Amino acid sequence: MVRYKAIIAYDGTNFSGYQHQINGRTVQDEIEKTLSRISNQPIAINGSGRTDAGVHALGQVIDFSLPYKRNLEKLRFALDTQTPADIACKSVVEVPDDFHARYLVKEKVYEFHVDIGKPRSPFRRFYASYYPYPLDLAKIEHALADFLGTHDFTSFCSAKSEIENKVRTIYQADMVLNEAKDELIFTFRGNGFLYNMIRIMVGTLLKIGNGRIPADAIPTIIAAKDRNLAGPTAHPEGLYLKEVRY
Amino acid sequence: MVRYKAIIAYDGTNFSGYQHQINGRTVQDEIEKTLSRISNQPIAINGSGRTDAGVHALGQVIDFSLPYKRNLEKLRFALDTQTPADIACKSVVEVPDDFHARYLVKEKVYEFHVDIGKPRSPFRRFYASYYPYPLDLAKIEHALADFLGTHDFTSFCSAKSEIENKVRTIYQADMVLNEAKDELIFTFRGNGFLYNMIRIMVGTLLKIGNGRIPADAIPTIIAAKDRNLAGPTAHPEGLYLKEVRY
Repeated sequence: MVRYKAIIAYDGTNFSGYQHQINGRTVQDEIEKTLSRISNQPIAINGSGRTDAGVHALGQVIDFSLPYKRNLEKLRFALDTQTPADIACKSVVEVPDDFHARYLVKEKVYEFHVDIGKPRSPFRRFYASYYPYPLDLAKIEHALADFLGTHDFTSFCSAKSEIENKVRTIYQADMVLNEAKDELIFTFRGNGFLYNMIRIMVGTLLKIGNGRIPADAIPTIIAAKDRNLAGPTAHPEGLYLKEVRY
Repeated sequence: MVRYKAIIAYDGTNFSGYQHQINGRTVQDEIEKTLSRISNQPIAINGSGRTDAGVHALGQVIDFSLPYKRNLEKLRFALDTQTPADIACKSVVEVPDDFHARYLVKEKVYEFHVDIGKPRSPFRRFYASYYPYPLDLAKIEHALADFLGTHDFTSFCSAKSEIENKVRTIYQADMVLNEAKDELIFTFRGNGFLYNMIRIMVGTLLKIGNGRIPADAIPTIIAAKDRNLAGPTAHPEGLYLKEVRY
């Protein structure tokens, strides 16, 4: 068996999420179907982690093993063109047998896009969350810096999560306004993110920008370890898994 | 009656085009339905011109008359939010009774987007045409300049067109490569464009860039007044009606 690592992009709009489920179209199922057809035998893949329904990926990473050595560009092309049009394959490389797309993750980078234009762009309705209310961007910048470092992010994790250790390290948390000044793009880089963590961080930052949570509240919210103190969970269509580092 | 001019944006993906037709969902029908509901009587609109199925608009212009004077921002908001999510209303202004969105057009501006990345971006599959073959951008730049000025564009008009006067003036024809170097954005500004004209111009420019039509062929193709000498019609999903000037 030969082990491969592939970088995948997908438009999450018409998926029930990355991970296989009984009902619903998933990215994992579509890729496994294609690899199994190419290989004439059932092939299973590992992803770097799941993404929710509507969430996009610019650089999701998967691994899988195939019975024969393949030409890498031919394999990439097959994965790219034989999967549905909302999945693309950016690269395929050979990796050692013990590579694992989920267990060996060192860092993940996410983007979150917020359409702040009036009106909402019809071209972004599936590709950015919409926030039409006044925003003080300086307050958001101030609050973003308070996420940096190692913290217990219980307050920024879905109450549904069953994971025990909620300590994560954030290396980068920033925001840019696009040239047309009608879209905010947040970037978060960390050693891992909890369930809904970025969406809750962004939901909280927008409330801070709108003046309904104080700009210096993040340290207090983190310290409280209480999901109820943070803001709402921002919509999935703004979220992009941008890069996974090993 | 009070006459209004509105600037409309739409994602053309799920429309059979701008203009009313017996079968198929159209932009005109959706806007007329909304205005008629708001006004409790049938309201008809004029557009600056039709756009084909899959073609987008950033700045389509329409006009219509309503029986009462309306607050402009309330009317814009109603048109924006009561039409489906793939139509947005950017502005509404009052205009003189003799304003007409089609007859009084002075200039139109179109963009054409070409995804030249490998792989094709899943996020652009409805928003850019795809061209994966080698391109010499200098050849395209050279050929673009030959479109400028006043010419009979018979060679760049669908053979199906029944219009007699095919003389049009092009004021601007340029191309930029985006920052990621995986998308070409063409801009064309002229006093009018024939049916499929921009799509045939782009189809021809891509063949020139790929070396299959000489870079200096445009004047010869124009002079021949023969559709068969130009390149293929580029796909509709790359085309955007950007602005209409009066």
